[in-house]
Amino acid sequence: MKALKERIIKDGCATGNNILRVDSFLNHQIDIVFYNEIGKEFYRLFQTAGVNKILTIEASGIGIACITAQYFNVPVVFAKKAKSENIADEFYTSRVESFTYKRPYDIIVSKKYLHKEDKILILDDFLANGQAMLGLLDVIRQAGAQLAGAGVVIEKGFQNGGKTLRGMGVNLHSLAIVKSMSEKGIVFED
Amino acid sequence: MKALKERIIKDGCATGNNILRVDSFLNHQIDIVFYNEIGKEFYRLFQTAGVNKILTIEASGIGIACITAQYFNVPVVFAKKAKSENIADEFYTSRVESFTYKRPYDIIVSKKYLHKEDKILILDDFLANGQAMLGLLDVIRQAGAQLAGAGVVIEKGFQNGGKTLRGMGVNLHSLAIVKSMSEKGIVFED
Repeated sequence: MKALKERIIKDGCATGNNILRVDSFLNHQIDIVFYNEIGKEFYRLFQTAGVNKILTIEASGIGIACITAQYFNVPVVFAKKAKSENIADEFYTSRVESFTYKRPYDIIVSKKYLHKEDKILILDDFLANGQAMLGLLDVIRQAGAQLAGAGVVIEKGFQNGGKTLRGMGVNLHSLAIVKSMSEKGIVFED
Repeated sequence: MKALKERIIKDGCATGNNILRVDSFLNHQIDIVFYNEIGKEFYRLFQTAGVNKILTIEASGIGIACITAQYFNVPVVFAKKAKSENIADEFYTSRVESFTYKRPYDIIVSKKYLHKEDKILILDDFLANGQAMLGLLDVIRQAGAQLAGAGVVIEKGFQNGGKTLRGMGVNLHSLAIVKSMSEKGIVFED
């Protein structure tokens, strides 16, 4: 997505430790007009995939999922990060190994909102090691639902999440794939 | 908001400990068509207030803020719950006493995204004791920004958040105010 790459070059900031800061428009302050462009692009990419529900994970994925859902005219479900060790039977749950938080956490989705008839589009803002995405896939598998595809706004191509997911046969579309980044600049895959 | 009250009666569930579960349409699964009705109503209520930015807090507030922001044509900023004790100088921060989590947490907002020229509308899904809202007001005060008003989808009128905020002179609109609730039913204020 050309406009996204241009925006990342203009407003993004690559810092140490493989962090790409895009918090001026994507995941702290949110440019709603630009979110709509992102939503339209996800719709263009997945409109024929039979999506009847969008699944994401708190927090940054929620806004992207909600804006995009307007184009598909489907509901959103967001997985929550469990606050306690006691997870009730009413939830699907999966453990996520987090590199950001340096410790694992559990995601939960109520069994009431994922069914075997569902055809799910997963959306998220970032794809790095793909651990959160694998947790969402696990939850979909537990529900017996179908996966329509997965869309992420920015993939860090130098980390292995994209490779892992594509290797599993996931219909993954990333709107921008960062090949490399440093304080000197950000390079995208074609 | 009549449609909201009807929806709460139809799909909400009052459980013990003053919990009102509306996770089938508001804060776990999200009915995007209904979110748009909520967004339109917030616009109707605050359209003359000079809003140039919407502030909310992760996680459930983000979707409501994003959908509503489309009507105002303004950006959203969402406060984050701090993951560590070390908060950098670049953030405004405020401590929130949480009754839900049973322990306090810090919210952070980058100083880059709140300015003294801003006129802020705060949005959130629930208002109970109002502690999160007070944290957001504190952050706005630190930034020297103006408060245009505060909108919440559901206020628990039997808890003291609404009274506290109105007592401070906050231009608060709640789309539904629950007067009392039990397994027998949910009663709204007029």
